[in-house]
Amino acid sequence: MDYFRRIFRIQAGLRRKKLDALLVSQPENRRYLSGYSALDHGIAETAGVLLIPARGLPWLLTDFRFKLQAEADSGFLRIGLYPKGLLALLTELLSDLEIRSLGFESHYTLHSFAEKLKALGDKTRVRVVPTTGLVEKLRLVKDEEEIAKIRAAVELNEQVFTEVYSSLVPDLTENEVALGIESTMRRMGALSPSFDTIVATGSNSALPHAVPGTAAIKKDQPLMIDMGLILDGYCSDMTRTFMLGEPDKKFLTIHRLVRRAQLAAMASIRAGVVAAKVDKIARDIIADAGYGPAFGHSLGHGVGLAVHEDPRLSSRNGKKLQAGMVVTVEPGIYLPEWGGMRLENMVVVREDGCELLNQNSTWMDL
Amino acid sequence: MDYFRRIFRIQAGLRRKKLDALLVSQPENRRYLSGYSALDHGIAETAGVLLIPARGLPWLLTDFRFKLQAEADSGFLRIGLYPKGLLALLTELLSDLEIRSLGFESHYTLHSFAEKLKALGDKTRVRVVPTTGLVEKLRLVKDEEEIAKIRAAVELNEQVFTEVYSSLVPDLTENEVALGIESTMRRMGALSPSFDTIVATGSNSALPHAVPGTAAIKKDQPLMIDMGLILDGYCSDMTRTFMLGEPDKKFLTIHRLVRRAQLAAMASIRAGVVAAKVDKIARDIIADAGYGPAFGHSLGHGVGLAVHEDPRLSSRNGKKLQAGMVVTVEPGIYLPEWGGMRLENMVVVREDGCELLNQNSTWMDL
Repeated sequence: MDYFRRIFRIQAGLRRKKLDALLVSQPENRRYLSGYSALDHGIAETAGVLLIPARGLPWLLTDFRFKLQAEADSGFLRIGLYPKGLLALLTELLSDLEIRSLGFESHYTLHSFAEKLKALGDKTRVRVVPTTGLVEKLRLVKDEEEIAKIRAAVELNEQVFTEVYSSLVPDLTENEVALGIESTMRRMGALSPSFDTIVATGSNSALPHAVPGTAAIKKDQPLMIDMGLILDGYCSDMTRTFMLGEPDKKFLTIHRLVRRAQLAAMASIRAGVVAAKVDKIARDIIADAGYGPAFGHSLGHGVGLAVHEDPRLSSRNGKKLQAGMVVTVEPGIYLPEWGGMRLENMVVVREDGCELLNQNSTWMDL
Repeated sequence: MDYFRRIFRIQAGLRRKKLDALLVSQPENRRYLSGYSALDHGIAETAGVLLIPARGLPWLLTDFRFKLQAEADSGFLRIGLYPKGLLALLTELLSDLEIRSLGFESHYTLHSFAEKLKALGDKTRVRVVPTTGLVEKLRLVKDEEEIAKIRAAVELNEQVFTEVYSSLVPDLTENEVALGIESTMRRMGALSPSFDTIVATGSNSALPHAVPGTAAIKKDQPLMIDMGLILDGYCSDMTRTFMLGEPDKKFLTIHRLVRRAQLAAMASIRAGVVAAKVDKIARDIIADAGYGPAFGHSLGHGVGLAVHEDPRLSSRNGKKLQAGMVVTVEPGIYLPEWGGMRLENMVVVREDGCELLNQNSTWMDL
């Protein structure tokens, strides 16, 4: 990965904004700029932050547990350890590096920590400036190396799906299937799922974010599986809805409608199209069939180092898609009594259309 | 669970602080006050926030995906959905409920959101006030119903340990054992591990937070397993260090020393004792044997809805333990060449002593 090019772009942005440095706390941003792959445990237990000066090599500020991993992942980082806490180390470094203005990521810094940063700034006469989206803006458009990693994550996800799908039988519980999926992911080399796997049967599938429970799979009920994994840092995300038995007329009708909405949306995706318009194309098809209120979420979202990132394919996103963006296309219909139907694939936005990353067509064209 | 009593206590606190309402964003706090069990995906993808007015029923503000789950988990909550985002809904509700002062959790609110809250407050003349630890303070002391859930989480964790322990053979890798543990946890009914399982062999075990890797288990090296799970919302946490083969003299010496420190610390635990004193009792025993610098972490931590919470059994905690607190007791010795030894059990602080939650004694008394 071309970490230096990314860092140079951030540094150029800092100089334009008259900032001497940026503190990067958002974990995917940290990895994007450095390759450092250690994992946080929530925002309160971080594996470190990057300090990117407007010129020169970036620093990783972390504790001694992560030193070896930082050196292995990103040999170019200067490493600062903070046995007495991040604020104490920052106080020293800001002085040593003659940093007089420091940006921080407002969207991934706790209010309580921002207050401490401001107090530090007041004491040391450093201007502390909230920023937002500086790194995310770069992450919107993926380069081909990133797309290759996303493609590999999609492929592995489909291999896992295929293996688990072939072992499904009635009376397995949602929990058991979800466990099978997540164990298979890890056995086949994924770091972890990219989100909590959804296995929802019958009316449970009417919850778009159902949590797998003790309900058993039945032959004649819709079964929704929404699964994704992380491979080499990059995420995949795919949903299939199917039945173990023969699909009935209602299932077929709704399935075909959702699939038609998905295909129409995909056909509209290319560089330059407004994201909201893509959402509308799918939504209109579902609404015209009388199911408008049953499609209560947006059409899709970006996928990369994070499984949910910009751009959103939603009615509120008036921005144009750009070549190299990677998004999900996942229309759905949710009927509390009957269940839910969602079909989700991932595509790369290209100049003249979109490239489907999925190969799996199980239950897609009925 | 007695959610009303908890909410009444928060409401009484709000009235004392002249706050009309509190916004609860920290996920364990949210569950503690309501039973609502939906899971966040990091701080940026929340399953909702509670709005606790100083009087009257609490609100859950969430999006439509979580409506059914909220109703199933906590029938008493008023539910506000935010199709246009949390701030738009808050603006309406603050006006409807005549809220003129609103606390938020500074330690679990992003700086960017706090800025938006402040702007909303400026516009609507609502006083927006950072708070910290209001709910955590209640969570310190567990009631018997919570202790029963923690006990069940400990029991299940031990069942998983026993099953995996019986299947251990040389040449399994750390990764394989960790995957086996986490799969078994879920198969036996846990929601998930409560933290990334540690399986560390030989000198890897000298890292207190080792990440399982491709190293294989050897008969004559220490093997450290630190594992915990979440059951019905509550966490367990247990460490055993053992060998597949016959323990040598050095292993026995260090094991007995750590165990002696653990038992002495446990013997000192009762309501009213200062947390730092318990830490010191274990630390002195290890230091007197010449291993002081090799015990580089604190003795223990609280466990409840979160696997790491207050109170800490550390030299820096000068507060007294209270009956109903649940803590780990986990002295350790880490020698870079040889490896690590940590023994961890969980206890409930009682008026006249402590109650050991663990039944498992595998490799504890050699």
